Amino acid sequence: MQTATISRLHEHAGGEVTIRGWLSAKRSSGKIRFLILRDGTGQCQCIVEASHADAFETADRLTLESSCILTGTVRPDDRAPGGCELDVTGIEILHIAEEYPISRKAHGIDFLMNHRHLWLRSPRQTAILRIRHTIIRAARGYFDDAGFTLIDTPILQPGAAEGAATLFPVDYFGEEVYLAQTGQLYLESACMALGNVYCFGPTFRAEKSKTRRHLTEFWMIEPEITFADLPVLRHHAEQMTTRILRDVLEHHRDDLASMGRDTAPLEAITPPFPVLTYTEAVDLLHSEKVRSWLEGDLADKEKQLAACREELAEAVESLGTAKKAWQKEKAEQQIRSLEEHVRELETDIEHRRHHMSDASAFEWGRDFGGDEETILSRQFDKPLFVTGYPREVKAFYMKRNGQDPRVVENMDMLAPEGYGEVIGGSIREDQLDVLLERMKEENMDPEPYQWYLDLRRYGSIPHGGFGLGIERTVSWMCGLKHVRETIPFPRLLGRMTP
Amino acid sequence: MQTATISRLHEHAGGEVTIRGWLSAKRSSGKIRFLILRDGTGQCQCIVEASHADAFETADRLTLESSCILTGTVRPDDRAPGGCELDVTGIEILHIAEEYPISRKAHGIDFLMNHRHLWLRSPRQTAILRIRHTIIRAARGYFDDAGFTLIDTPILQPGAAEGAATLFPVDYFGEEVYLAQTGQLYLESACMALGNVYCFGPTFRAEKSKTRRHLTEFWMIEPEITFADLPVLRHHAEQMTTRILRDVLEHHRDDLASMGRDTAPLEAITPPFPVLTYTEAVDLLHSEKVRSWLEGDLADKEKQLAACREELAEAVESLGTAKKAWQKEKAEQQIRSLEEHVRELETDIEHRRHHMSDASAFEWGRDFGGDEETILSRQFDKPLFVTGYPREVKAFYMKRNGQDPRVVENMDMLAPEGYGEVIGGSIREDQLDVLLERMKEENMDPEPYQWYLDLRRYGSIPHGGFGLGIERTVSWMCGLKHVRETIPFPRLLGRMTP
Repeated sequence: MQTATISRLHEHAGGEVTIRGWLSAKRSSGKIRFLILRDGTGQCQCIVEASHADAFETADRLTLESSCILTGTVRPDDRAPGGCELDVTGIEILHIAEEYPISRKAHGIDFLMNHRHLWLRSPRQTAILRIRHTIIRAARGYFDDAGFTLIDTPILQPGAAEGAATLFPVDYFGEEVYLAQTGQLYLESACMALGNVYCFGPTFRAEKSKTRRHLTEFWMIEPEITFADLPVLRHHAEQMTTRILRDVLEHHRDDLASMGRDTAPLEAITPPFPVLTYTEAVDLLHSEKVRSWLEGDLADKEKQLAACREELAEAVESLGTAKKAWQKEKAEQQIRSLEEHVRELETDIEHRRHHMSDASAFEWGRDFGGDEETILSRQFDKPLFVTGYPREVKAFYMKRNGQDPRVVENMDMLAPEGYGEVIGGSIREDQLDVLLERMKEENMDPEPYQWYLDLRRYGSIPHGGFGLGIERTVSWMCGLKHVRETIPFPRLLGRMTP
Repeated sequence: MQTATISRLHEHAGGEVTIRGWLSAKRSSGKIRFLILRDGTGQCQCIVEASHADAFETADRLTLESSCILTGTVRPDDRAPGGCELDVTGIEILHIAEEYPISRKAHGIDFLMNHRHLWLRSPRQTAILRIRHTIIRAARGYFDDAGFTLIDTPILQPGAAEGAATLFPVDYFGEEVYLAQTGQLYLESACMALGNVYCFGPTFRAEKSKTRRHLTEFWMIEPEITFADLPVLRHHAEQMTTRILRDVLEHHRDDLASMGRDTAPLEAITPPFPVLTYTEAVDLLHSEKVRSWLEGDLADKEKQLAACREELAEAVESLGTAKKAWQKEKAEQQIRSLEEHVRELETDIEHRRHHMSDASAFEWGRDFGGDEETILSRQFDKPLFVTGYPREVKAFYMKRNGQDPRVVENMDMLAPEGYGEVIGGSIREDQLDVLLERMKEENMDPEPYQWYLDLRRYGSIPHGGFGLGIERTVSWMCGLKHVRETIPFPRLLGRMTP
């Protein structure tokens, strides 16, 4: 007998197979039992008739998430999700699960995060993680095909590259070292040995604020390109993004639909992407266009908030009148979920109000925060490049602009639909004296960076690169509100388990 | 004018191009200057004749590792490494390098490791890193093609998976957490959600001993396979290894030849690979066959040691008679390098002697060390699987053998030519009570592992996986003595920089 995976069950139409997996739902109808089996590749409805007495009896013993092996005949059925159902003739129980803690009811986010090791089994979470895999393959594939060499840069590093405030210290045989914030400095060294290179690995920032866009442990793909200027960086960023979009849309239309992601905004994206300088972006923030967009957006959000509060009041009332335990539990869970939504909307509204009151006061020279990024990215249907940020708000290694020394040769790419920064990059300062001056401005001790400064002593070249944040990209593609679902086991402020 | 990379220069035969890179060597011959330019993709001999007066004069100003842009005509020449040379008409200097610290003379390993950021530029190092990239692509490609989903398991973990003695502590906002020793426990959770999965990332072991096979930070690819038994694990390990071998041999014949790697032993490897149980392997260690192999090997090594000592004596003598500074430097460097080689051979001989005196005393129940692995792997021309190790020397999560509870359902794969363990894996214990009993035996507190134990409470299934160490695989493929050259920036006991 052949063992089949559910995703390839259609190849066995009419044949007898075994499938192996977990029971994700069950219902009864007289002399029939309907079992929904999932095996990681998909879900399949399996039908057990009373005429198969042994199987029928065994079916009744199966609890949610029990593991088992089903034998049966594959029957094509156009109404079934995978195009087939299984007419079961035998059931072998592998393990009867204890009462499964995750039900179909709404759970609070803390409960789900505490049960992340089981929550991963839900169809929405598996879809997100499969899309994550496709995004990573697409990005790596782009650089592999373009002749870049993969360089695994070190995670344990002696110093900071992106500001000492967000370093995680590690006890290295009694010596204090730090977790990598980026592979960039090491990549620069490698690109002068191997030409174009990229790294892909985990990076760490001890971000002390809770936001929807930050994890303390996140993954980045970072290319470093020899003899590059900003248009070359933009070209690679555009082409890589286009390839990611293409692969996600090609392989995950069903997954995206299942999580309610409207794919039209993704499909509309084609290069070239718009480019603004930082100065132009500041002007746009002050513009009449943005002011009227803000007013409209604020009105929308207030309408949503009112509706949400009304729902919440109803849920509170139904909790008061609930008699049975399951009714109470359901109402409580609904309340928790609505309360979270209300808090989110209140925060959004507060931010919008703050920005409107403050808009004319946004001064040239400040860094864009999440709010400004959201507002800017909402004005375009495509990813937006913003270039030439003020030197003071950017890292020491970014090349100073030759015409305007107040700004650096950098670029951020803001994803549309309000997702904000997914790529940050720059041309690197290649002159030793300018780099030393910048480090002095930042009160950095040059001693631990002598090896890095060597790259400007022995055949310095123009070069640059960027980093794409994987989790923010997953969030954007999947249309998620929070990055916490974009990585298998998220690490946040106050969240280190499981 | 077209800009070309050196590796694709042959596509421009007869045409005028510019190439950009670094000067890696220079020599003069009357009215001709020969410049060897490297650009990360390859090396090219560039010829400057005195008739091009500007370029000729500029050529004389170029120091080693200076960066420049050369313009010229591509002339096919079968004797040239890439099949062409460049007849230079113009030279633009980008940066004149200070006196380059790495010369063609032999440097001590500490000097090279301190200059790792520049040492990467040597042809041998770039070849190793390109082969590393191919190995990683091949391994990922194998699992991608086989339908496995990539799962990026967390680096920051609350507990140990491979023994508390080798954990690196991290200060996580005041709480002590640890760097991942493996992604396995998390992968097990993911495989029950997504079916077959794999992770690829950095792992950390605070190994307090200096050996040629250990880094404190190393990369592993780890698959986790649902409904697997040992033959299934072996099948995937064999197929993945075969794909790595095929891709390395297909793309890197020249690289391997350039570093003196005899490819014949690699080419001879085809599945199936031999399998021994631990018990059979212990018997083999005690056998007459191994005893006579050890005697021959010892005699070889003693002969090598005598020759090496002789060379060392000559070098010491030449240092005594050296008059010029460069002669002294050269002799000193030679002495350092020979002394290292002598130390290595002495260690090897000591280990062999120890094993021979101790051989009959190697007791069933001990774990194999590097010496036993070397001896075992030298007896086969193919990778060797050893299965069924004593329970006491293996991790708590390995499944106990049903017939013989003294041993577990595990496998190590030892690479031939003495390279030893490159893969370690096992079937996982899937019964809650047995797992708890094992944790008690190991004095482990089950509390931090409740989430992991949940996988045995909710639909436990037979499953297993393995981990392939990337650096040891690179070492084996490239025929290196030490893993320190297999990763861009190695981290070892006492080595955290650059």
